[in-house]
Amino acid sequence: MSGPSPQRRPLSLADAGAGAVDPAPDDGTGRVRLRFLPDGAEVRVPSGTPVFDAASWNGIAIDSTCGGHGTCKKCRVRIVSGEVPVGPLDPRAFSADELREGWRLACRANARGDLVVEVPPLQTRPKAALAGVGRHVILRPAVQKRHLVLEEPTMEDQRSDLQRVLDALEDLEPHASVEMLRSLGSVLRASHFNVTAVVCDQELIDLEPGDTTARRFAIAFDLGTTTVVATLLDLESGQPVAVRSMLNRQQPYGADVITRISATMMDPDALDALRERVHETMAELVAEVCSEGDVAPREVYEITMCGNVTMMHLALGIDPEPLSMAPFVVSTHSFPEVLARDLGLSVHPRAPAFLFPSLGAYVGGDIVAGMLATGLTRDRRLRLFIDVGTNSEIALGSHERVLATAAPAGPAFEAAQIRCGMRAAPGAIEGVKLSEDGVSLDVIGDEPPVGICGSGLVDAVAELVHCGLLDHSGRFIPDEDAHRRFPGLADRLTKIGQERVFVLDWRGGQDPERSVFLSQRDVRELQFAKASIATGWSILMASLGVAPEDVSQILLAGSFGAYLSPLSAVRIGLVPKIALPRIVSAGNVAGEGAKIAALSVRERAEAYSILREVEYVELSGRSDFNDMFVDQLAFPG
Amino acid sequence: MSGPSPQRRPLSLADAGAGAVDPAPDDGTGRVRLRFLPDGAEVRVPSGTPVFDAASWNGIAIDSTCGGHGTCKKCRVRIVSGEVPVGPLDPRAFSADELREGWRLACRANARGDLVVEVPPLQTRPKAALAGVGRHVILRPAVQKRHLVLEEPTMEDQRSDLQRVLDALEDLEPHASVEMLRSLGSVLRASHFNVTAVVCDQELIDLEPGDTTARRFAIAFDLGTTTVVATLLDLESGQPVAVRSMLNRQQPYGADVITRISATMMDPDALDALRERVHETMAELVAEVCSEGDVAPREVYEITMCGNVTMMHLALGIDPEPLSMAPFVVSTHSFPEVLARDLGLSVHPRAPAFLFPSLGAYVGGDIVAGMLATGLTRDRRLRLFIDVGTNSEIALGSHERVLATAAPAGPAFEAAQIRCGMRAAPGAIEGVKLSEDGVSLDVIGDEPPVGICGSGLVDAVAELVHCGLLDHSGRFIPDEDAHRRFPGLADRLTKIGQERVFVLDWRGGQDPERSVFLSQRDVRELQFAKASIATGWSILMASLGVAPEDVSQILLAGSFGAYLSPLSAVRIGLVPKIALPRIVSAGNVAGEGAKIAALSVRERAEAYSILREVEYVELSGRSDFNDMFVDQLAFPG
Repeated sequence: MSGPSPQRRPLSLADAGAGAVDPAPDDGTGRVRLRFLPDGAEVRVPSGTPVFDAASWNGIAIDSTCGGHGTCKKCRVRIVSGEVPVGPLDPRAFSADELREGWRLACRANARGDLVVEVPPLQTRPKAALAGVGRHVILRPAVQKRHLVLEEPTMEDQRSDLQRVLDALEDLEPHASVEMLRSLGSVLRASHFNVTAVVCDQELIDLEPGDTTARRFAIAFDLGTTTVVATLLDLESGQPVAVRSMLNRQQPYGADVITRISATMMDPDALDALRERVHETMAELVAEVCSEGDVAPREVYEITMCGNVTMMHLALGIDPEPLSMAPFVVSTHSFPEVLARDLGLSVHPRAPAFLFPSLGAYVGGDIVAGMLATGLTRDRRLRLFIDVGTNSEIALGSHERVLATAAPAGPAFEAAQIRCGMRAAPGAIEGVKLSEDGVSLDVIGDEPPVGICGSGLVDAVAELVHCGLLDHSGRFIPDEDAHRRFPGLADRLTKIGQERVFVLDWRGGQDPERSVFLSQRDVRELQFAKASIATGWSILMASLGVAPEDVSQILLAGSFGAYLSPLSAVRIGLVPKIALPRIVSAGNVAGEGAKIAALSVRERAEAYSILREVEYVELSGRSDFNDMFVDQLAFPG
Repeated sequence: MSGPSPQRRPLSLADAGAGAVDPAPDDGTGRVRLRFLPDGAEVRVPSGTPVFDAASWNGIAIDSTCGGHGTCKKCRVRIVSGEVPVGPLDPRAFSADELREGWRLACRANARGDLVVEVPPLQTRPKAALAGVGRHVILRPAVQKRHLVLEEPTMEDQRSDLQRVLDALEDLEPHASVEMLRSLGSVLRASHFNVTAVVCDQELIDLEPGDTTARRFAIAFDLGTTTVVATLLDLESGQPVAVRSMLNRQQPYGADVITRISATMMDPDALDALRERVHETMAELVAEVCSEGDVAPREVYEITMCGNVTMMHLALGIDPEPLSMAPFVVSTHSFPEVLARDLGLSVHPRAPAFLFPSLGAYVGGDIVAGMLATGLTRDRRLRLFIDVGTNSEIALGSHERVLATAAPAGPAFEAAQIRCGMRAAPGAIEGVKLSEDGVSLDVIGDEPPVGICGSGLVDAVAELVHCGLLDHSGRFIPDEDAHRRFPGLADRLTKIGQERVFVLDWRGGQDPERSVFLSQRDVRELQFAKASIATGWSILMASLGVAPEDVSQILLAGSFGAYLSPLSAVRIGLVPKIALPRIVSAGNVAGEGAKIAALSVRERAEAYSILREVEYVELSGRSDFNDMFVDQLAFPG
């Protein structure tokens, strides 16, 4: 499922299990169990996972400065029980006695069976930051700085300028581009060989005169179809310095991804234009966060970015047409290395861009980032992740196994084809309560209501179903029944033309057409949308052999998820029926994932693990989809 | 001594000896001995060399299609005697029984001790080409093509477009750039998934509609300070299709590298201008060879290039200033990956450029290419390699050990500061014979002589020393001695002003000033030049503990070497005194090396071995240099 080689951390042969001859044991799950001493923490990971990664994902800190490239030789652990063959780099780090005692470099020690691993006390206290959904992320950004005071060359020491720098970078072994080499010699000499090396992952991206180690920044982008969010991060502290968001300037080409793809199919210049527009959006955000954070753009040495597959294709100028039609094929799951400047960004000229990989045409890097931020693939609990939107992404699983799918819910949750629908803006009804006597509304901005947004729609339908004005098939009950059973509400159930509607607010008059109302057709729109999502998680549950009561937690992701009432979501059957406190709004997990990737190379390695481990289930074309969809159209009893 | 990581074939951890725990055995030379069965050929290589490379360098063919990346699993050999630990990829290629019997993948089997290796008969007859100095090069260009007829995607088979291509490339695992991905989907669909993949080393550089496997070209450049040579190669046959040469358009900035570096120091725009000039020169050669060979520039998928360090720095736009002054430090020995288009060349837009690495500021990629073409580091014979020029490069050694140095000979061999000196052009005296009665001259173009070129200068001085008109200290003998001993020649020994001269040709008159003559100062210029070179090889011989009689062969490289008379070279002491048939003009070995690199990735790996193995000896600053130089000023007795 993954592309040729995950970006910025290629699967090297060493990753494939250097020195390991035995095939991986298969206990049916392909997972192995690791216990870390002295604290006893246990974790299950896929066979072949480096011990270092398994520890990192679980917040267990092991010394390391090189980021797992085997160059710093600091990640010493002892295998107390279980087998890890001596790897090619181990003899350079350990004596023969130590090797016999089980000492190994954790970054190169792949767990191919159950292990007990002793972790020595840390030499340095690792910094960490809280990010994502309660994730404790040990800071190890791709961007590293090293202050170097070098010996000047002599006739006895004619090492190349580059080699002199590399030799001083004891724990890192970066490459240097031609562009870097162009100025290398003059910078070294102008600064009298007193410089700070800026290394991003495996690339030497700059030499700066003097000691600049205190200044080190990255920007994490969440590239949404509607909104783009940029977070400027101080990589020394792991803390956000500035956050800004902005509407995606691709909007004039259509509100959703399909319209934008259509634009590229009809106009040969549209792909370039769309690319430029998103670059402009991001560039303006760069300027804003740098200005707000008092950071020079050149001090931003990396960007990370997640987005849905279409957004990523458009940002990179890759033809998105195949994404829009069956069989929905992506150009690649893992994107090749690109620089921030290839995305039109004026940060450091050699700053790389880390792009989240995608699982499928409609389960993109934003969802992979969300899974990373929630720790879905590493948590023991069975959790259901739903990002509700026009295209809704659903993932279900735990550290044992995770399935994911995409459900084409349509625009109902954005209230786009709802008669009185509007965006979540001032004047939008976002919450609805029905009582015997009337209707109470939550309106954004405490203004008189002018329309209804997605969460208000869900609330309204849920309340109507709950009280019985809507039956379980989604039809308004007959007028006579309404008058009999709900005298205080029945006059709100009326007609506009031939269509039955329920008036939420009369807006001071008596004309239903001037009111804010919910129509029978609106209810049908929502039914189709929620049935699509419910079919998605039902199919995942069936595939995983679990029932709703097995689910420990439901994570509602995205901005819509933040406003959705868990009670209403259960009442309309959008989510399985579980105890309400277990239904959690997870917020902008995609953006959190992008931040986490900027803070830790270990975590971005995990993004590629997600790509390899999570199984994508395609809904369209399934023979059982229509049957299940019809079942899910009704509201729960 | 090498840069961070050799270009296009990074030293991966697997190269460092995957699975090998034992330290390399040290027999004093760091070399190990391999014997190949069934033919019994033996070779000594540095410990750690892959068995495949050791075989390739010696013309022993082992099946392989992937170029040593461990992906094709065809390079099966059996270790009959000696130890090679099972590597990480071996269990994927062999059964447990086969592993026990000693079967290994040759490209991953590093020889860390003496081995006997059984090579199975070839499945396919490998193509080979003769190149360099009698080298038999097995064709395995970096550029490969594969015709693919792919299954079209379906809902059941939603592999990404890239993965579909990669899966079909069974033996190769290339990466794809964003630029490649931009058109991937549309090319696949427009050609109905019937395409030819163009892979260069580890990069998928194009998908072409239909089957284009018969067309595959590269251009090898020899980038000289004076002349640039381009050879268009058909990679299917290994044969040159067209060769063109042209004066380097950097000429107006100075005839030699030091003048050109000075230009960059005095004018901030000169570096860019020099870069553009060499790019223009190369671009024009591309147009010429493609036109002559009837090859579309887009069918040229790679270029290879060698040149001296200054030329390479200027072509890449790297500040050359540190090269021009002590301690003569290069920016890097191994250049990073660049594309042909970065060098201003309109060949395939994603064609990479393979750039030969350099040993030192004055032993550049041209000399590394020359060593490759002559097989200096792999031949059993002790050989002396001399590239005579303003800066003369000297290497001495065999498969046991090779030393190299650079000798600043000055421009005498280009006849630049010689009173009647001229380039080797029509009218230049290129050969001189003295007899008792007179002088016989070889003149280029059989025209009346107008001057003397380098080889004529060497010949003239050698003859004068041999007959005795010049004494061993380099002084013309007194007139009276000349008249007594050489009555037929003595009137040619005359004076211009205060300076004694020997007239080579009177040019129809009797005025020495209008004749073509050799002055006492000219002789001194040549003495300084030859002493510099002789000091170089003397120091190398002393360092290696060998005497002139131990040298099996002297290789005179470069265009000057082609015209130099071996007898004269011995007589003036430019080369050690050995039997004349052992002094060989090797021709343009740099250009041959560039061609070899285009024909075989194994050979370019060898270029990096040269970088690691050859020991660079710096002459300037040596305390014994001046002493030895003075010793070498005299002509041999």
